[in-house]
Amino acid sequence: MEDIYRLVEAEATNTETPNVEDEEEQDPESNDLHQPLLKRNRTLSSSPLAIVGAKVSHIESFDYEINENDLFKQDWRSRSKVQVLQYIFLKWLFAFLVGLLTGVIATLINLAVENIAGYKLLAVVRYIEEERYLMGFIYMAAANFLLTLVAAVLCVCFAPTAAGPGIPEIKAYLNGVDTPHMFGATTLIVKIIGSIGAVSAGLDLGKEGPLVHIGSCIASLLGQGGPDNYRIKWRWLRYFNNDRDRRDLITCGSSSGVCAAFRAPVGGVLFALEEVATWWRSALLWRTFFSTAVVVVVLRAAMEYCKSGNCGLFGKGGLIMFDVSGVSVRYHAVDIIPVAVIGVLGGLLGSLYNYLLHKVLKVYNVINEKGRLHKLLLSLSVSIFTSVCLYGLPFLAKCRPCDPSLLDSSCPTNTRAGNFKQFNCPNGYYNDLATLLLTTNDDAVRNIFSINTASEYNILSLIIFFALYCILGLITFGIAVPSGLFLPIILMGSAYGRMLGIAMGPYTNIDQGLYAVLGAASLMAGSMRMTVSLCVIFLELTNNLLLLPITMIVLLIAKTVGDCFNPSIYEIIFELKGLPFLEAHPEPWMRNITVGELADVKPAVVTLNGVE
Amino acid sequence: MEDIYRLVEAEATNTETPNVEDEEEQDPESNDLHQPLLKRNRTLSSSPLAIVGAKVSHIESFDYEINENDLFKQDWRSRSKVQVLQYIFLKWLFAFLVGLLTGVIATLINLAVENIAGYKLLAVVRYIEEERYLMGFIYMAAANFLLTLVAAVLCVCFAPTAAGPGIPEIKAYLNGVDTPHMFGATTLIVKIIGSIGAVSAGLDLGKEGPLVHIGSCIASLLGQGGPDNYRIKWRWLRYFNNDRDRRDLITCGSSSGVCAAFRAPVGGVLFALEEVATWWRSALLWRTFFSTAVVVVVLRAAMEYCKSGNCGLFGKGGLIMFDVSGVSVRYHAVDIIPVAVIGVLGGLLGSLYNYLLHKVLKVYNVINEKGRLHKLLLSLSVSIFTSVCLYGLPFLAKCRPCDPSLLDSSCPTNTRAGNFKQFNCPNGYYNDLATLLLTTNDDAVRNIFSINTASEYNILSLIIFFALYCILGLITFGIAVPSGLFLPIILMGSAYGRMLGIAMGPYTNIDQGLYAVLGAASLMAGSMRMTVSLCVIFLELTNNLLLLPITMIVLLIAKTVGDCFNPSIYEIIFELKGLPFLEAHPEPWMRNITVGELADVKPAVVTLNGVE
Repeated sequence: MEDIYRLVEAEATNTETPNVEDEEEQDPESNDLHQPLLKRNRTLSSSPLAIVGAKVSHIESFDYEINENDLFKQDWRSRSKVQVLQYIFLKWLFAFLVGLLTGVIATLINLAVENIAGYKLLAVVRYIEEERYLMGFIYMAAANFLLTLVAAVLCVCFAPTAAGPGIPEIKAYLNGVDTPHMFGATTLIVKIIGSIGAVSAGLDLGKEGPLVHIGSCIASLLGQGGPDNYRIKWRWLRYFNNDRDRRDLITCGSSSGVCAAFRAPVGGVLFALEEVATWWRSALLWRTFFSTAVVVVVLRAAMEYCKSGNCGLFGKGGLIMFDVSGVSVRYHAVDIIPVAVIGVLGGLLGSLYNYLLHKVLKVYNVINEKGRLHKLLLSLSVSIFTSVCLYGLPFLAKCRPCDPSLLDSSCPTNTRAGNFKQFNCPNGYYNDLATLLLTTNDDAVRNIFSINTASEYNILSLIIFFALYCILGLITFGIAVPSGLFLPIILMGSAYGRMLGIAMGPYTNIDQGLYAVLGAASLMAGSMRMTVSLCVIFLELTNNLLLLPITMIVLLIAKTVGDCFNPSIYEIIFELKGLPFLEAHPEPWMRNITVGELADVKPAVVTLNGVE
Repeated sequence: MEDIYRLVEAEATNTETPNVEDEEEQDPESNDLHQPLLKRNRTLSSSPLAIVGAKVSHIESFDYEINENDLFKQDWRSRSKVQVLQYIFLKWLFAFLVGLLTGVIATLINLAVENIAGYKLLAVVRYIEEERYLMGFIYMAAANFLLTLVAAVLCVCFAPTAAGPGIPEIKAYLNGVDTPHMFGATTLIVKIIGSIGAVSAGLDLGKEGPLVHIGSCIASLLGQGGPDNYRIKWRWLRYFNNDRDRRDLITCGSSSGVCAAFRAPVGGVLFALEEVATWWRSALLWRTFFSTAVVVVVLRAAMEYCKSGNCGLFGKGGLIMFDVSGVSVRYHAVDIIPVAVIGVLGGLLGSLYNYLLHKVLKVYNVINEKGRLHKLLLSLSVSIFTSVCLYGLPFLAKCRPCDPSLLDSSCPTNTRAGNFKQFNCPNGYYNDLATLLLTTNDDAVRNIFSINTASEYNILSLIIFFALYCILGLITFGIAVPSGLFLPIILMGSAYGRMLGIAMGPYTNIDQGLYAVLGAASLMAGSMRMTVSLCVIFLELTNNLLLLPITMIVLLIAKTVGDCFNPSIYEIIFELKGLPFLEAHPEPWMRNITVGELADVKPAVVTLNGVE
């Protein structure tokens, strides 16, 4: 991009048009530090209202480098040493605060979700114990309906930008494209409450994506001194009134969010590093890492505090998804074959998922554009469908006898956690599908990942589970509530991973729980096409270095296979939302394009002045 | 830098001097792909022989971007899809091979060192058991002398570039400055054998730095198809005959080296990322990670194989330095105080070490420039001094009684490993200083890091140990053998960390072994000023996420304190070696410098044409 600009500029100079730099110095209006338009992007979007592709989108491009007009230079040179120290101190203070607040809010969300969903499920189980199945269903469906309603109404009425994961917009922001109202205070609050509602409602979505968005919102609000209408007019804050420092802060925020979602500090940093395709500075690395470490400390302190039972049904839930540090993984060269199969499957299914989700989202866009009521109705019907499936499908599964060694201790259970749910079964029997469905999504992941449970799940139950989550994963993502993509993909992937593990039977040394983990990793790589950050996130989740090589093989194969068919899910969402995304490294032929050629070749790039 | 160049170029265009770009097209000689001089660096070093500072150094700057002359463009466009696939396949194959070979060579070095040093120490212990102390000393000193001689003769006569750690040159290379003969086959072989000799000789240096250099050499040799005189003229290889692909490969190599040294795959990647200040691409991230994962697999396979006792004295030695994944670390808010103290101490001592090492290296430079014999004599006298200290000092320590619970099982021991060396003590007693000194450096680190050994070390022994390694750390680094800086710094740092732990006594909840780890981390941050990669390396070494927050605090404080006094040790070596190093982000005022101003202000920047 740097190069394109340089050549575009050179071309402009050659053809005797006035130099962009000169123009700026003559313009007295342009002497404020926070100038939304970037010189280099003038050719592409010379006003906030640009037409990208065939869509009109209200996006702004922004400054990559600090704008260097005379005022700025004077300001920079006049700064005393104390002021520079103030600036550095503030930068680190902000990084600390971003981590602290993200950690605290993540804890609160977990706390709320675990308690709301927990008490809801306990009440449902009580009805089931009394064999009042219909009442149980009505109670669950009504609770889910209400929770979805809260989330959807908030999103539809107050902050439409809070719907969805937010990660594509953050990715776009970090690559130079600003979507308005993306990082405001209203968005933040709606995202928090909406996320609690949507996740508690048992919808097939996660809090991971929203947490990343929440982290970024916090960072953005801190940097500008508070919400738009109530900004603190602190003199120090003006140092942060430029796009570079703001973007740095938001990078910290998004890393903190990933870290809070997966308890993965290094993974969080690498996530930001991998997503920020066109911009990275070494100095930022350490500050981002600092933020994520603060998040980890906050999360750990909260877990320590909640261990004593002060947090209701929280327990150790919602945070660590899968820790197998104690397990010694043993595998041989032969195990490469099933691992490669998982990778290929992940790539195929991931790209298929991307393709189908694209189609579904197009249909949803048509519905959502019809108005608020349609948006609400769509969300609520998905909620009802989800409730029917989650409650009804376990009746299809056969009751399985408990292992005698576990009898009376952990099988069957009717509490919230536990691998062996009794549901409609007589004593001494458990319903494996209820274990997976009548629980929170986090617990479902924990259950399906659990190791040394080779005979726990029936293959039929897993097929039902997989099919259900394929459908839910497609229809849930586009509704107007805060929704993350990570968890649905993990649920789908773990199901087919585990199925493959059962199919391999005695021919493999890898535990079925680890097959589920690998399946989840493969589908994520096949759909999202992130690799390094995913790998490190899985490394930190499983806390076991022994798994690293096979995870890498799976991710590599899945990404390669997926790339053969279609772009990553984020790029598909980019296209749907009309967000431009510039590759970090242009093809070599692009370097020689002149402005004139650009205007000739791409008639779709039109610029309008103001709102016409 | 980009910006400097751009403005320099713009200035050049304004003042009617011929455009650099045009000049190139007129020059028929410049149409080869591998062109050592970079356009943008012409202003600084327009010939291979540039004067930097006051030193003449034979360094070359090289292409940041792929040179795009007509031939290249034609070549790029004429490539078929198959050729592009060939290229991609080769890139990944090379990444795999770099990891594989680095892993294998690291294993071989470990194997050789553990066996040579092990049998040497066993023989010495046998003399001590027979109370023939003088014979023991003579045997040890002679063995160390011979091993040092081998290493030094090889370095002095065949490959002077193999002396030292090699990391500064790699850092320079990755930032655009090529030192000749740095990555040749001779250098590689001398580095491997020299490193084995020097480490086995008990000198105060590590194999970590050399491993990084070895990894880079392997990568460079692979990329160019073999050693200079016996290159494979394979048609496919010509794709790698450009600076960008070569640098990418060397990045993979250096990451693999760090990974092999510390068994830290993510740490290795971040090391390269942090050191490569001016150049990074996301695409490289994943390839580098792939290489390091291959290294981990190789190391693990080797350890698995050696467990059955096929590797002599290897055991599990030489690879994992400190794994506390099983330990539950508990600390409270009060523990922040000693942690902060360690950080401050690390910063102060680190910068002091940098300062003193700078002075010592200047003196050494004077000696080394006098000729080969002087170099050899210097190395050998250091070897003799080391032998005298390592053997003599333990006699100063008092014999301490073994803990009754350990008696007859692990205390006292005379084997190679073990925490309680008997040395000159009667049965039932052990000599704590002998435990630390009469062993390999790796085992010394393991011993001083060991947890739940609160009363094992006397504070006096630790003071002697610390003082000795301060002296050795200063005098050993500059001698003409392959030497790493990591291990000496870890040894010094762990000593004062542990001393502080003893001093804190009952006022702290942190184990003394962890104090030693934190001390080592603080001194590394205080001297080398790396942060993120160090943090991740320590995370992977200790394999315990609970330690992360305090490690981060220590590193942050140490780096900040150290930065107040002097630059990092690598920058000091840069200056001594006359390697130019360009900061990734120039100060804003630099952007407006014109070529004329540059010539006026810095008369030291002179360019010569050829050898004058």
